[in-house]
Amino acid sequence: MAPILDRVCSGLAPDAVVTDVGSAKASVVAAVRAAAGRVPPWFVPGHPIAGAEHSGVEHSFAQLFEYHRVILTPLPETDPAAHARVREMWQLVGAEVLDMEVDHHDTVLAATSHLPHVLAFCLVDSLARRSENEAIFEFAAGGFRDFTRIASGDPVMWRDICLANREAILEIIARFQADLAEVTAAIARRDGEALTETFRRAKVARDTHVVGKSGAVR
Amino acid sequence: MAPILDRVCSGLAPDAVVTDVGSAKASVVAAVRAAAGRVPPWFVPGHPIAGAEHSGVEHSFAQLFEYHRVILTPLPETDPAAHARVREMWQLVGAEVLDMEVDHHDTVLAATSHLPHVLAFCLVDSLARRSENEAIFEFAAGGFRDFTRIASGDPVMWRDICLANREAILEIIARFQADLAEVTAAIARRDGEALTETFRRAKVARDTHVVGKSGAVR
Repeated sequence: MAPILDRVCSGLAPDAVVTDVGSAKASVVAAVRAAAGRVPPWFVPGHPIAGAEHSGVEHSFAQLFEYHRVILTPLPETDPAAHARVREMWQLVGAEVLDMEVDHHDTVLAATSHLPHVLAFCLVDSLARRSENEAIFEFAAGGFRDFTRIASGDPVMWRDICLANREAILEIIARFQADLAEVTAAIARRDGEALTETFRRAKVARDTHVVGKSGAVR
Repeated sequence: MAPILDRVCSGLAPDAVVTDVGSAKASVVAAVRAAAGRVPPWFVPGHPIAGAEHSGVEHSFAQLFEYHRVILTPLPETDPAAHARVREMWQLVGAEVLDMEVDHHDTVLAATSHLPHVLAFCLVDSLARRSENEAIFEFAAGGFRDFTRIASGDPVMWRDICLANREAILEIIARFQADLAEVTAAIARRDGEALTETFRRAKVARDTHVVGKSGAVR
Protein backbone atom coordinates (compact mmCIF):
# COMPACT_ATOMS: atom_id res chain seq x y z
CA MET A 1 0.00 0.00 0.00
CA ALA A 2 2.70 2.49 1.00
CA PRO A 3 4.48 2.91 -2.39
CA ILE A 4 1.14 3.06 -4.22
CA LEU A 5 -0.19 5.71 -1.85
CA ASP A 6 3.00 7.75 -2.35
CA ARG A 7 2.26 7.86 -6.08
CA VAL A 8 -1.50 8.44 -5.62
CA CYS A 9 -1.04 11.36 -3.23
CA SER A 10 1.15 13.34 -5.62
CA GLY A 11 -1.36 13.40 -8.48
CA LEU A 12 -4.81 13.83 -6.96
CA ALA A 13 -7.47 16.22 -8.28
CA PRO A 14 -8.64 18.61 -5.53
CA ASP A 15 -12.03 16.93 -5.16
CA ALA A 16 -10.79 13.34 -5.52
CA VAL A 17 -11.94 10.72 -3.04
CA VAL A 18 -9.74 7.68 -2.37
CA THR A 19 -10.69 4.38 -0.80
CA ASP A 20 -9.09 0.94 -0.65
CA VAL A 21 -10.11 -2.72 -0.35
CA GLY A 22 -7.40 -4.03 1.95
CA SER A 23 -8.08 -6.74 4.53
CA ALA A 24 -6.33 -4.80 7.34
CA LYS A 25 -7.17 -1.19 8.07
CA ALA A 26 -4.82 0.24 10.72
CA SER A 27 -1.81 -0.35 8.48
CA VAL A 28 -3.48 1.40 5.52
CA VAL A 29 -4.34 4.39 7.70
CA ALA A 30 -0.71 4.51 8.83
CA ALA A 31 0.48 4.29 5.21
CA VAL A 32 -1.77 7.08 3.99
CA ARG A 33 -0.79 9.20 6.97
CA ALA A 34 2.87 8.70 6.07
CA ALA A 35 2.26 9.46 2.38
CA ALA A 36 0.06 12.55 2.90
CA GLY A 37 1.66 13.85 6.08
CA ARG A 38 -1.71 13.63 7.88
CA VAL A 39 -4.91 11.58 7.81
CA PRO A 40 -6.44 13.25 4.77
CA PRO A 41 -10.21 14.04 4.70
CA TRP A 42 -10.50 12.50 1.22
CA PHE A 43 -9.42 8.98 2.27
CA VAL A 44 -12.11 6.48 3.30
CA PRO A 45 -10.65 3.13 4.42
CA GLY A 46 -12.79 0.24 3.22
CA HIS A 47 -12.97 -3.55 3.11
CA PRO A 48 -15.43 -5.57 1.03
CA ILE A 49 -16.05 -8.99 2.64
CA ALA A 50 -16.23 -10.79 -0.68
CA GLY A 51 -14.04 -12.75 -3.04
CA ALA A 52 -12.78 -16.26 -3.42
CA GLU A 53 -9.40 -17.98 -3.47
CA HIS A 54 -8.60 -16.44 -6.87
CA SER A 55 -6.92 -13.04 -7.13
CA GLY A 56 -6.77 -10.46 -9.87
CA VAL A 57 -9.19 -8.46 -11.97
CA GLU A 58 -9.56 -11.40 -14.38
CA HIS A 59 -11.53 -13.25 -11.68
CA SER A 60 -14.00 -10.40 -11.16
CA PHE A 61 -17.67 -10.68 -12.13
CA ALA A 62 -20.56 -8.25 -11.98
CA GLN A 63 -22.35 -9.90 -9.05
CA LEU A 64 -19.24 -10.20 -6.85
CA PHE A 65 -20.45 -7.76 -4.19
CA GLU A 66 -24.20 -8.39 -4.29
CA TYR A 67 -25.55 -9.22 -0.82
CA HIS A 68 -22.03 -9.00 0.59
CA ARG A 69 -20.92 -6.67 3.32
CA VAL A 70 -18.52 -3.81 2.93
CA ILE A 71 -16.97 -2.40 6.09
CA LEU A 72 -15.87 1.24 6.05
CA THR A 73 -13.67 2.54 8.85
CA PRO A 74 -13.91 6.35 8.61
CA LEU A 75 -11.79 8.42 10.99
CA PRO A 76 -12.59 11.66 12.80
CA GLU A 77 -10.65 13.45 10.05
CA THR A 78 -12.71 11.85 7.23
CA ASP A 79 -14.90 14.24 5.21
CA PRO A 80 -18.55 13.10 5.64
CA ALA A 81 -19.16 13.82 1.93
CA ALA A 82 -16.28 11.52 0.91
CA HIS A 83 -17.62 8.86 3.29
CA ALA A 84 -21.12 9.14 1.77
CA ARG A 85 -19.72 8.91 -1.76
CA VAL A 86 -17.81 5.71 -1.08
CA ARG A 87 -20.81 4.23 0.73
CA GLU A 88 -23.02 5.00 -2.26
CA MET A 89 -20.53 3.46 -4.69
CA TRP A 90 -20.67 0.16 -2.81
CA GLN A 91 -24.45 0.24 -2.49
CA LEU A 92 -24.71 0.70 -6.25
CA VAL A 93 -22.98 -2.65 -6.84
CA GLY A 94 -25.37 -4.34 -4.40
CA ALA A 95 -23.34 -4.40 -1.19
CA GLU A 96 -24.56 -3.79 2.35
CA VAL A 97 -22.31 -1.07 3.81
CA LEU A 98 -21.58 -0.54 7.48
CA ASP A 99 -19.09 1.42 9.55
CA MET A 100 -16.69 0.08 12.14
CA GLU A 101 -13.78 1.35 14.22
CA VAL A 102 -10.40 0.59 12.65
CA ASP A 103 -9.16 -1.57 15.56
CA HIS A 104 -12.43 -3.47 15.88
CA HIS A 105 -12.33 -4.27 12.17
CA ASP A 106 -8.80 -5.57 12.41
CA THR A 107 -9.65 -7.77 15.43
CA VAL A 108 -12.78 -9.22 13.85
CA LEU A 109 -11.06 -9.92 10.54
CA ALA A 110 -8.05 -11.50 12.25
CA ALA A 111 -10.48 -13.97 13.84
CA THR A 112 -12.82 -14.73 10.94
CA SER A 113 -10.46 -14.52 7.98
CA HIS A 114 -6.76 -14.16 8.75
CA LEU A 115 -6.53 -16.93 11.37
CA PRO A 116 -8.48 -19.48 9.25
CA HIS A 117 -6.20 -18.72 6.29
CA VAL A 118 -3.04 -19.13 8.36
CA LEU A 119 -4.40 -22.45 9.70
CA ALA A 120 -5.32 -23.72 6.23
CA PHE A 121 -1.96 -22.76 4.69
CA CYS A 122 -0.15 -24.24 7.68
CA LEU A 123 -2.13 -27.49 7.64
CA VAL A 124 -1.58 -28.14 3.94
CA ASP A 125 2.11 -27.26 4.20
CA SER A 126 2.49 -29.37 7.33
CA LEU A 127 1.05 -32.42 5.54
CA ALA A 128 2.89 -31.72 2.27
CA ARG A 129 6.24 -31.70 4.08
CA ARG A 130 5.70 -35.23 5.42
CA SER A 131 7.29 -38.00 3.42
CA GLU A 132 3.97 -39.71 2.83
CA ASN A 133 2.36 -36.60 1.39
CA GLU A 134 1.37 -38.20 -1.90
CA ALA A 135 -0.59 -40.91 -0.11
CA ILE A 136 -1.94 -38.44 2.41
CA PHE A 137 -3.51 -36.12 -0.14
CA GLU A 138 -4.74 -39.07 -2.15
CA PHE A 139 -7.08 -40.02 0.67
CA ALA A 140 -8.30 -36.55 1.47
CA ALA A 141 -12.10 -36.58 1.38
CA GLY A 142 -14.61 -33.83 0.64
CA GLY A 143 -14.33 -32.21 4.05
CA PHE A 144 -10.59 -31.76 3.60
CA ARG A 145 -11.17 -30.14 0.23
CA ASP A 146 -13.53 -27.52 1.63
CA PHE A 147 -11.39 -27.03 4.70
CA THR A 148 -8.27 -26.30 2.66
CA ARG A 149 -9.78 -24.40 -0.27
CA ILE A 150 -8.60 -21.10 1.25
CA ALA A 151 -5.02 -22.42 1.12
CA SER A 152 -5.25 -21.74 -2.62
CA GLY A 153 -5.20 -18.02 -1.92
CA ASP A 154 -2.47 -15.78 -3.32
CA PRO A 155 0.68 -16.33 -1.19
CA VAL A 156 1.98 -12.78 -1.67
CA MET A 157 -1.34 -11.18 -0.73
CA TRP A 158 -1.56 -13.34 2.38
CA ARG A 159 2.03 -12.51 3.34
CA ASP A 160 1.07 -8.84 3.10
CA ILE A 161 -2.07 -9.34 5.20
CA CYS A 162 -0.10 -11.20 7.87
CA LEU A 163 2.41 -8.37 8.06
CA ALA A 164 -0.23 -5.61 7.85
CA ASN A 165 -2.42 -7.03 10.64
CA ARG A 166 0.46 -8.60 12.51
CA GLU A 167 -0.49 -7.77 16.10
CA ALA A 168 -4.16 -8.77 15.90
CA ILE A 169 -3.19 -11.99 14.11
CA LEU A 170 -0.51 -12.89 16.66
CA GLU A 171 -3.01 -12.33 19.48
CA ILE A 172 -5.69 -14.54 17.96
CA ILE A 173 -3.18 -17.27 17.04
CA ALA A 174 -1.97 -17.31 20.64
CA ARG A 175 -5.54 -17.79 21.88
CA PHE A 176 -6.17 -20.53 19.33
CA GLN A 177 -2.96 -22.33 20.26
CA ALA A 178 -3.97 -22.28 23.92
CA ASP A 179 -7.42 -23.65 23.08
CA LEU A 180 -5.93 -26.33 20.81
CA ALA A 181 -3.56 -27.32 23.61
CA GLU A 182 -6.60 -27.79 25.88
CA VAL A 183 -8.35 -30.06 23.36
CA THR A 184 -5.10 -31.97 22.84
CA ALA A 185 -4.76 -32.47 26.60
CA ALA A 186 -8.34 -33.80 26.71
CA ILE A 187 -7.52 -36.33 23.98
CA ALA A 188 -4.30 -37.29 25.79
CA ARG A 189 -6.09 -37.96 29.10
CA ARG A 190 -9.01 -39.69 27.28
CA ASP A 191 -11.48 -37.10 28.59
CA GLY A 192 -14.47 -37.93 26.39
CA GLU A 193 -16.74 -35.58 28.29
CA ALA A 194 -14.53 -32.53 27.66
CA LEU A 195 -14.25 -33.45 23.97
CA THR A 196 -18.00 -33.86 23.51
CA GLU A 197 -18.59 -30.55 25.27
CA THR A 198 -16.09 -28.67 23.07
CA PHE A 199 -17.30 -30.27 19.84
CA ARG A 200 -20.96 -29.69 20.74
CA ARG A 201 -20.37 -26.01 21.60
CA ALA A 202 -18.60 -25.60 18.26
CA LYS A 203 -21.38 -27.37 16.35
CA VAL A 204 -24.07 -25.24 17.99
CA ALA A 205 -22.14 -22.01 17.33
CA ARG A 206 -21.47 -23.01 13.74
CA ASP A 207 -25.02 -24.16 13.01
CA THR A 208 -26.48 -21.06 14.69
CA HIS A 209 -24.26 -18.31 13.37
CA VAL A 210 -22.82 -19.55 10.12
CA VAL A 211 -25.43 -20.61 7.61
CA GLY A 212 -25.53 -20.94 3.86
CA LYS A 213 -23.06 -22.50 1.49
CA SER A 214 -22.42 -19.70 -0.98
CA GLY A 215 -20.22 -16.72 -0.43
CA ALA A 216 -23.28 -14.62 0.40
CA VAL A 217 -23.51 -13.20 3.90
CA ARG A 218 -26.97 -14.63 4.52
CA MET B 1 -17.65 -50.70 18.79
CA ALA B 2 -16.78 -52.99 21.72
CA PRO B 3 -20.30 -53.57 23.17
CA ILE B 4 -21.76 -53.99 19.69
CA LEU B 5 -19.10 -56.54 18.74
CA ASP B 6 -19.79 -58.43 21.96
CA ARG B 7 -23.39 -58.86 20.86
CA VAL B 8 -22.52 -59.59 17.23
CA CYS B 9 -20.02 -62.31 18.06
CA SER B 10 -22.49 -64.35 20.10
CA GLY B 11 -25.07 -64.72 17.34
CA LEU B 12 -23.20 -65.18 14.09
CA ALA B 13 -24.11 -67.78 11.46
CA PRO B 14 -21.12 -70.06 10.68
CA ASP B 15 -20.52 -68.51 7.26
CA ALA B 16 -21.21 -64.89 8.27
CA VAL B 17 -18.80 -62.17 7.22
CA VAL B 18 -18.54 -59.00 9.31
CA THR B 19 -17.09 -55.63 8.33
CA ASP B 20 -17.32 -52.11 9.75
CA VAL B 21 -17.16 -48.49 8.56
CA GLY B 22 -15.22 -46.89 11.42
CA SER B 23 -12.76 -44.06 10.83
CA ALA B 24 -10.03 -45.72 12.93
CA LYS B 25 -9.00 -49.31 12.38
CA ALA B 26 -6.52 -50.42 15.06
CA SER B 27 -9.09 -49.84 17.81
CA VAL B 28 -11.73 -51.88 15.94
CA VAL B 29 -9.30 -54.74 15.46
CA ALA B 30 -8.53 -54.62 19.20
CA ALA B 31 -12.26 -54.60 20.02
CA VAL B 32 -13.05 -57.57 17.81
CA ARG B 33 -10.06 -59.45 19.19
CA ALA B 34 -11.37 -58.81 22.71
CA ALA B 35 -14.91 -59.86 21.78
CA ALA B 36 -13.98 -63.00 19.80
CA GLY B 37 -10.92 -64.00 21.78
CA ARG B 38 -8.79 -63.82 18.59
CA VAL B 39 -8.67 -61.96 15.29
CA PRO B 40 -11.43 -63.90 13.56
CA PRO B 41 -11.07 -64.87 9.88
CA TRP B 42 -14.59 -63.59 9.15
CA PHE B 43 -13.88 -59.97 10.14
CA VAL B 44 -12.75 -57.53 7.43
CA PRO B 45 -12.01 -54.05 8.82
CA GLY B 46 -13.15 -51.34 6.40
CA HIS B 47 -13.49 -47.59 6.01
CA PRO B 48 -15.43 -45.82 3.25
CA ILE B 49 -13.99 -42.34 2.59
CA ALA B 50 -17.39 -40.77 2.01
CA GLY B 51 -20.05 -38.87 3.86
CA ALA B 52 -20.76 -35.32 4.89
CA GLU B 53 -21.24 -33.42 8.14
CA HIS B 54 -24.60 -35.16 8.69
CA SER B 55 -24.82 -38.49 10.52
CA GLY B 56 -27.39 -41.25 10.55
CA VAL B 57 -29.13 -43.50 8.08
CA GLU B 58 -31.67 -40.75 7.29
CA HIS B 59 -28.90 -38.84 5.50
CA SER B 60 -27.97 -41.77 3.25
CA PHE B 61 -28.58 -41.75 -0.48
CA ALA B 62 -28.02 -44.31 -3.23
CA GLN B 63 -25.04 -42.53 -4.82
CA LEU B 64 -23.17 -41.93 -1.55
CA PHE B 65 -20.27 -44.25 -2.35
CA GLU B 66 -20.02 -43.82 -6.12
CA TYR B 67 -16.49 -42.83 -7.17
CA HIS B 68 -15.42 -42.77 -3.52
CA ARG B 69 -12.68 -44.86 -2.05
CA VAL B 70 -13.12 -47.61 0.46
CA ILE B 71 -10.06 -48.73 2.38
CA LEU B 72 -9.98 -52.30 3.68
CA THR B 73 -7.33 -53.31 6.21
CA PRO B 74 -7.31 -57.11 6.17
CA LEU B 75 -5.03 -58.92 8.62
CA PRO B 76 -2.93 -62.07 8.16
CA GLU B 77 -5.76 -63.94 9.92
CA THR B 78 -8.44 -62.66 7.52
CA ASP B 79 -10.09 -65.26 5.27
CA PRO B 80 -9.37 -64.28 1.63
CA ALA B 81 -12.94 -65.27 0.71
CA ALA B 82 -14.38 -62.91 3.34
CA HIS B 83 -12.06 -60.17 2.10
CA ALA B 84 -13.21 -60.73 -1.51
CA ARG B 85 -16.86 -60.69 -0.48
CA VAL B 86 -16.58 -57.34 1.30
CA ARG B 87 -14.59 -55.89 -1.59
CA GLU B 88 -17.29 -56.97 -4.02
CA MET B 89 -20.04 -55.47 -1.87
CA TRP B 90 -18.37 -52.05 -1.99
CA GLN B 91 -17.66 -52.32 -5.70
CA LEU B 92 -21.35 -53.04 -6.31
CA VAL B 93 -22.31 -49.65 -4.83
CA GLY B 94 -19.76 -47.92 -7.05
CA ALA B 95 -16.78 -47.55 -4.74
CA GLU B 96 -13.10 -47.97 -5.58
CA VAL B 97 -11.70 -50.46 -3.07
CA LEU B 98 -8.09 -50.71 -1.95
CA ASP B 99 -6.16 -52.39 0.83
CA MET B 100 -3.91 -50.79 3.39
CA GLU B 101 -2.06 -51.75 6.56
CA VAL B 102 -4.02 -50.94 9.72
CA ASP B 103 -1.41 -48.53 11.10
CA HIS B 104 -0.87 -46.78 7.80
CA HIS B 105 -4.60 -46.23 7.48
CA ASP B 106 -4.80 -44.71 10.93
CA THR B 107 -1.85 -42.38 10.26
CA VAL B 108 -3.19 -41.19 6.90
CA LEU B 109 -6.70 -40.63 8.26
CA ALA B 110 -5.39 -38.80 11.32
CA ALA B 111 -3.71 -36.35 8.92
CA THR B 112 -6.40 -35.90 6.28
CA SER B 113 -9.56 -36.18 8.35
CA HIS B 114 -9.15 -36.28 12.11
CA LEU B 115 -6.71 -33.35 12.43
CA PRO B 116 -8.77 -31.05 10.16
CA HIS B 117 -11.90 -31.86 12.16
CA VAL B 118 -10.17 -31.15 15.48
CA LEU B 119 -8.88 -27.83 14.08
CA ALA B 120 -12.31 -26.82 12.75
CA PHE B 121 -14.11 -27.70 15.99
CA CYS B 122 -11.40 -25.95 17.98
CA LEU B 123 -11.43 -22.80 15.82
CA VAL B 124 -15.19 -22.35 15.98
CA ASP B 125 -15.26 -23.01 19.73
CA SER B 126 -12.29 -20.70 20.27
CA LEU B 127 -14.09 -17.84 18.51
CA ALA B 128 -17.48 -18.63 20.05
CA ARG B 129 -16.00 -18.37 23.54
CA ARG B 130 -14.84 -14.79 22.93
CA SER B 131 -17.14 -12.06 24.16
CA GLU B 132 -17.51 -10.58 20.71
CA ASN B 133 -18.59 -13.85 19.14
CA GLU B 134 -21.84 -12.50 17.73
CA ALA B 135 -20.02 -9.79 15.81
CA ILE B 136 -17.24 -12.17 14.86
CA PHE B 137 -19.50 -14.74 13.20
CA GLU B 138 -21.55 -11.98 11.60
CA PHE B 139 -18.56 -10.99 9.50
CA ALA B 140 -17.45 -14.48 8.59
CA ALA B 141 -17.19 -14.66 4.81
CA GLY B 142 -17.55 -17.57 2.41
CA GLY B 143 -14.09 -18.96 3.10
CA PHE B 144 -14.86 -19.25 6.79
CA ARG B 145 -18.08 -21.08 6.00
CA ASP B 146 -16.32 -23.74 3.93
CA PHE B 147 -13.44 -23.93 6.38
CA THR B 148 -15.72 -24.62 9.33
CA ARG B 149 -18.38 -26.79 7.67
CA ILE B 150 -16.81 -29.92 9.17
CA ALA B 151 -17.35 -28.42 12.64
CA SER B 152 -21.02 -29.33 12.11
CA GLY B 153 -20.13 -33.01 12.43
CA ASP B 154 -21.64 -35.17 15.14
CA PRO B 155 -19.86 -34.34 18.45
CA VAL B 156 -20.25 -37.83 19.90
CA MET B 157 -18.92 -39.55 16.78
CA TRP B 158 -15.91 -37.22 16.73
CA ARG B 159 -15.27 -37.78 20.43
CA ASP B 160 -15.22 -41.52 19.68
CA ILE B 161 -12.86 -41.05 16.73
CA CYS B 162 -10.48 -38.92 18.83
CA LEU B 163 -10.39 -41.61 21.51
CA ALA B 164 -10.18 -44.51 19.02
CA ASN B 165 -7.29 -43.04 17.03
CA ARG B 166 -5.79 -41.19 19.98
CA GLU B 167 -2.08 -41.86 19.43
CA ALA B 168 -1.97 -41.07 15.71
CA ILE B 169 -4.04 -37.91 16.30
CA LEU B 170 -1.81 -36.73 19.15
CA GLU B 171 1.25 -37.23 16.98
CA ILE B 172 -0.12 -35.27 14.03
CA ILE B 173 -1.43 -32.46 16.27
CA ALA B 174 2.05 -32.13 17.81
CA ARG B 175 3.59 -31.79 14.35
CA PHE B 176 0.97 -29.25 13.32
CA GLN B 177 1.49 -27.21 16.49
CA ALA B 178 5.23 -27.10 15.83
CA ASP B 179 4.64 -25.98 12.23
CA LEU B 180 2.10 -23.36 13.35
CA ALA B 181 4.60 -22.08 15.90
CA GLU B 182 7.12 -21.65 13.05
CA VAL B 183 4.68 -19.64 10.96
CA THR B 184 3.73 -17.58 14.01
CA ALA B 185 7.40 -16.84 14.68
CA ALA B 186 7.81 -15.72 11.05
CA ILE B 187 4.87 -13.31 11.45
CA ALA B 188 6.31 -12.07 14.75
CA ARG B 189 9.72 -11.30 13.25
CA ARG B 190 8.12 -9.84 10.08
CA ASP B 191 9.79 -12.50 7.92
CA GLY B 192 7.87 -11.97 4.68
CA GLU B 193 10.10 -14.34 2.76
CA ALA B 194 9.41 -17.28 5.09
CA LEU B 195 5.67 -16.56 4.96
CA THR B 196 5.57 -16.39 1.16
CA GLU B 197 7.53 -19.62 0.95
CA THR B 198 5.20 -21.48 3.33
CA PHE B 199 2.03 -20.14 1.73
CA ARG B 200 3.33 -20.87 -1.77
CA ARG B 201 4.32 -24.45 -0.89
CA ALA B 202 0.82 -24.96 0.57
CA LYS B 203 -0.90 -23.47 -2.46
CA VAL B 204 1.12 -25.64 -4.86
CA ALA B 205 0.43 -28.80 -2.82
CA ARG B 206 -3.25 -27.97 -2.54
CA ASP B 207 -3.71 -27.06 -6.20
CA THR B 208 -1.71 -30.12 -7.31
CA HIS B 209 -3.09 -32.83 -5.09
CA VAL B 210 -6.54 -31.71 -4.01
CA VAL B 211 -8.82 -30.96 -6.89
CA GLY B 212 -12.56 -30.91 -7.37
CA LYS B 213 -15.25 -29.35 -5.24
CA SER B 214 -17.63 -32.19 -4.67
CA GLY B 215 -17.14 -35.05 -2.25
CA ALA B 216 -15.91 -37.22 -5.11
CA VAL B 217 -12.35 -38.48 -4.96
CA ARG B 218 -11.47 -37.16 -8.41
